[in-house]
Amino acid sequence: MDYTHPSAVNSNAEFYCKHELPFVMGTTGGDRAKLTETVRKSKVPAIIAPNMAKQIVGFQAMMEYASATFPNLFAGYRLEIKESHQKGKADTSGTAKAMVGYFNKLGLEFTPDEIVMVRDPAIQKNEMGVPEEYLSGHGWHTYRLTSQDGTVQFAFTHNVNGREIYAQGTLDAVAYLHEKVANGVKGRVFSMIDVLKST
Amino acid sequence: MDYTHPSAVNSNAEFYCKHELPFVMGTTGGDRAKLTETVRKSKVPAIIAPNMAKQIVGFQAMMEYASATFPNLFAGYRLEIKESHQKGKADTSGTAKAMVGYFNKLGLEFTPDEIVMVRDPAIQKNEMGVPEEYLSGHGWHTYRLTSQDGTVQFAFTHNVNGREIYAQGTLDAVAYLHEKVANGVKGRVFSMIDVLKST
Repeated sequence: MDYTHPSAVNSNAEFYCKHELPFVMGTTGGDRAKLTETVRKSKVPAIIAPNMAKQIVGFQAMMEYASATFPNLFAGYRLEIKESHQKGKADTSGTAKAMVGYFNKLGLEFTPDEIVMVRDPAIQKNEMGVPEEYLSGHGWHTYRLTSQDGTVQFAFTHNVNGREIYAQGTLDAVAYLHEKVANGVKGRVFSMIDVLKST
Repeated sequence: MDYTHPSAVNSNAEFYCKHELPFVMGTTGGDRAKLTETVRKSKVPAIIAPNMAKQIVGFQAMMEYASATFPNLFAGYRLEIKESHQKGKADTSGTAKAMVGYFNKLGLEFTPDEIVMVRDPAIQKNEMGVPEEYLSGHGWHTYRLTSQDGTVQFAFTHNVNGREIYAQGTLDAVAYLHEKVANGVKGRVFSMIDVLKST
């Protein structure tokens, strides 16, 4: 299980493959095409998963399905995205940015810089109700869609406190990988979507 | 466009078919299998849609996709469903009941009688914030999923005030049917999903 640093992604993967160690790569960044290529040329299977939270990955897959199947379903609607994370997280959530792409296909005009980022612990605690013990580690997202005349509102929320959901997902990924190894699978890359479909 | 009464569904459809009048059936109830059969044997196309709200039908389709593709994704989670409608609506929302089926497949234990129905205008106005002018006509639904240890929460909400969303959907259905008639389509039944996919 690799949860290291973007700068180590490719060299670590080369090490695992060279030593025939099947691996779960939870680290983001690095050269992703090269990462896949390294596994494909190796004798091991690997799971490459920038997000280990199964339920969130599943929700993203639902949105991807909707955006591909019902383009412009929400044409004319107004979108608001708000995401709150611990103070140290400087960049916008990658999940929120991925969601913007799906919402665009659903007919909503929105750019990633319109995402409202909350990083202030006082606002998180007092206005949003993030529990004190999770101010240092949480990911709360709300996507709100409002019809042009204001009579219809949809809202999708996923609030994660702590890291339990990622630990659970990692265990499921390891179990999935173990089964692939047992079946002699080599040089193949799997995603969390594969893990989800198997459970 | 037929928005009448469950008891009139089948006789009305027979009348439309006999007189070769393409129709949009927004009325629920009646013998649905017989309704489909009547259209299939006729020389007209028809759209049969128990729910005309395109975005809600689309959201249901997303849930159906998830429940078929990722069974048990939310195993171990706790589900709460709350739906609020105008005082006169005696039965539980059909949409909420359909959603229970999808949630069950996603691994959530829940029966339709656990749906919390709100019909008290005082609660709707003061606790939920339903605007005064829509106390007599609204449909607010919230589905809340909480992980066993309480660290993860998902919520899906669709709040509809008045009937504008249904009027819009009906217009889209009529435009879709018009195109089918122009193309000489006969004896075929379409759904709102077909209308959604075409836009």
